[in-house]
Amino acid sequence: MDLIDVFKTKKIGDTVELEGWVRNNRDQKEFGFIDFYDGTSVNTLQVVYTKELANFDSITKIHPGSAIEVKGTLVESNGKQEYELKPESINLIGDCPTDYPIQPKRHTVEFLRSQAYLRPRTKLFQAVFKIRSIAAAGIHEYFQNNNYTYVHTPIMTNSDCEGSNQMFKVTTFDLADVPKTEDGSVDYTQDLFGKEAYITGSGQLHGETYAMAFKKIYTFGPTFRTEDSNTKTHANEFWMIEPEMAFTHLEGLMDAEEDMLKYVIKYTLEKGAAEIEFLNQFVSKGLKEKLEKVANSNFVRITHHEAIDLLLGSGEKWEFTPDYESDIAKEHEKWITEHFGAPVFIYNWPKDIKAWYMKLNDDGKTVAAVDLEVPGSGELMGGSEREVDMDKLEELIKIHGVDRSQVEWYVNLRKFGGCYHSGYGMGFERLIMYLTGVENIRDVIPFPRTPGNLNY
Amino acid sequence: MDLIDVFKTKKIGDTVELEGWVRNNRDQKEFGFIDFYDGTSVNTLQVVYTKELANFDSITKIHPGSAIEVKGTLVESNGKQEYELKPESINLIGDCPTDYPIQPKRHTVEFLRSQAYLRPRTKLFQAVFKIRSIAAAGIHEYFQNNNYTYVHTPIMTNSDCEGSNQMFKVTTFDLADVPKTEDGSVDYTQDLFGKEAYITGSGQLHGETYAMAFKKIYTFGPTFRTEDSNTKTHANEFWMIEPEMAFTHLEGLMDAEEDMLKYVIKYTLEKGAAEIEFLNQFVSKGLKEKLEKVANSNFVRITHHEAIDLLLGSGEKWEFTPDYESDIAKEHEKWITEHFGAPVFIYNWPKDIKAWYMKLNDDGKTVAAVDLEVPGSGELMGGSEREVDMDKLEELIKIHGVDRSQVEWYVNLRKFGGCYHSGYGMGFERLIMYLTGVENIRDVIPFPRTPGNLNY
Repeated sequence: MDLIDVFKTKKIGDTVELEGWVRNNRDQKEFGFIDFYDGTSVNTLQVVYTKELANFDSITKIHPGSAIEVKGTLVESNGKQEYELKPESINLIGDCPTDYPIQPKRHTVEFLRSQAYLRPRTKLFQAVFKIRSIAAAGIHEYFQNNNYTYVHTPIMTNSDCEGSNQMFKVTTFDLADVPKTEDGSVDYTQDLFGKEAYITGSGQLHGETYAMAFKKIYTFGPTFRTEDSNTKTHANEFWMIEPEMAFTHLEGLMDAEEDMLKYVIKYTLEKGAAEIEFLNQFVSKGLKEKLEKVANSNFVRITHHEAIDLLLGSGEKWEFTPDYESDIAKEHEKWITEHFGAPVFIYNWPKDIKAWYMKLNDDGKTVAAVDLEVPGSGELMGGSEREVDMDKLEELIKIHGVDRSQVEWYVNLRKFGGCYHSGYGMGFERLIMYLTGVENIRDVIPFPRTPGNLNY
Repeated sequence: MDLIDVFKTKKIGDTVELEGWVRNNRDQKEFGFIDFYDGTSVNTLQVVYTKELANFDSITKIHPGSAIEVKGTLVESNGKQEYELKPESINLIGDCPTDYPIQPKRHTVEFLRSQAYLRPRTKLFQAVFKIRSIAAAGIHEYFQNNNYTYVHTPIMTNSDCEGSNQMFKVTTFDLADVPKTEDGSVDYTQDLFGKEAYITGSGQLHGETYAMAFKKIYTFGPTFRTEDSNTKTHANEFWMIEPEMAFTHLEGLMDAEEDMLKYVIKYTLEKGAAEIEFLNQFVSKGLKEKLEKVANSNFVRITHHEAIDLLLGSGEKWEFTPDYESDIAKEHEKWITEHFGAPVFIYNWPKDIKAWYMKLNDDGKTVAAVDLEVPGSGELMGGSEREVDMDKLEELIKIHGVDRSQVEWYVNLRKFGGCYHSGYGMGFERLIMYLTGVENIRDVIPFPRTPGNLNY
């Protein structure tokens, strides 16, 4: 059976039969301790074996990392655990030599990154990737419970309206011998799709087409950016959730974001209690309290203009001077969330620094966009009401230099039964960093892809 | 509120306020009918308006496809529905001109494919893509309930051990001007990752690394194949579920597949009752009965050798002669599932026609692979126990010509605490075709990608 089910359902006196791995094996003369795990929980079970077992000597020689099967009875423990296992038998299934890179000692995350295929066996990464799995399940549960339809927007696309300079190209050509036309340009007619192809940076535009059919939809899939940036928060491949809601204005959008985030945090705190406990203790002190607080707080809602007022009036010395026409800097985000001690929605942004499809407000200067800033992590979600006025949208397309022929179908959504609607995007890794307290995006993605790094 | 919640919770006499779209609007002199939907259910609500409404005349002119908001009271219906809506007000939110391609009449699926961004508004595609969403949720729920960890295996990879000739290349290069080294080969050091990159055809090998940490894992993500094949069952981009289970032999693998499939079918029948009803009536007569039967059947388990025996002894005239050393053809799959009237696991396949990582059986001739064949759809899942004997695996790598340096990490899984383990893959679109009765893969993917087809 699975160790997590032992923890959930078994009590002292029960017999269990388990398969899993040895995190540590310390033997003394008459008895020994195996720190046993199977990965279904971050918690381990202590197996205390004695000379009563016929193969005692060979058990003492089992190396950390080995796979074993163990049968026995749960008995009272002298340690911190509720119980420990008194084994009737311990059998080695798969040995692990002493050159095994993961030893029962403290490894740096940098070293573990170099062992990406083995690091999920450590307690730290067991906790992180279990939370990743749980949060994903919580996200699906939230949207399904609230009548959103899950849509798989395409990964390969020929729509580059979000900026093809940031998109990976995808092809079946031999790159050493790309077919050319007579004028020397690439002959895409010979490629599988007969045209230029990319892998997507966002499913939003496609998602909107489905929101106009299903009222509320969400995407949850991988996205890609070519950014040549080596920071703690950038990866070239990451997962995004992009919900889109018909018949929803900016206020309803903020309600939807807040409701979702609180649900997912509560879900994670409940289903990932052991993992959060571990992370709270060893990675980020106060993590649990932070999450519980946010799950029960009311998110603050201020305009960009109000935010700049606050920043300018704060008396702080800023590296970047707050400005009514500009984006806010990381230092500003930090100050604002600390000032309120809660997540803060900042809405109505200067139109020139936001995307072309966002709804122009009546002031003619701002768009109905909203970013959610959370304490300790900065921007977690970004969204907007979409422009649905055909004339304004056509104007925005011109101003931003979007290729009109590429977005014909998108514009048509306004023509055929269009309605006010809004949507947001949440970077899944950002959320996982927030939920785990882990500070480097490389440590919340199983096999991270960053510039110069494409291993496995 | 959402229409599906009206159906679930409201009764005659209740007042409701809804936003959605007009599927049809038929007016007579004194009253009119609007067939109203909002996409949260495939079912529509009949709105019966009369001259009592001040804007009666303009309501009669609302075109199909328009977005409206409607308030009113649920009243007894003379039709088949439980109730209809007597409106207090109907307001037009977004008009829809008469050149709207989706009219209230029968459209061919071929025509609708050419309107991929509008087709989810039709009842057929509302049903199909709602089932797609529900089935995805059911899959997550099953695996989460059973202690599997959800793993996002990488999409971009430099591992081409599954056959790079079937993989798309991905690059940041300008294809018109690919950098070359002095000897004329591609200078990948100048690409973002500094090496050749592909988008994945399978997450299995990466998934195995996580199964060796979490015991049971599953992937659920997009996969890509360059196959230049225009059939009803091939697409170049599709979603796969690839579970992998440590400490699991072939028999346990079949148990796991059967358990999962039955759960997902039951989940879909329950949560998608209205959609299955619609599909049963208009797409595939007997669909519901077929699914209910499978969900309650015991799947048959026969070896490949036994399957060939049966085929040879059947007295049928085959286009492809059944052969103990070969794959079985579509006609064979069909006969076998019809013969048993149930899903059939066929296991222990000739080693030469299966993948290099599958466990060699003691007979030296077959591998512990298993395909699940389902009535009416053929192969739905394929899996195997994996080879864990280091010597045998090294031998298989040589025989199949796999680049050893590429799979060093994979081989190491056998060295560091290795254990018997098994896994399977299920094509998500195959499942959706099976659950909906829809026969063309282009009609179960929102924006399908097939050779020459990369629209939107």
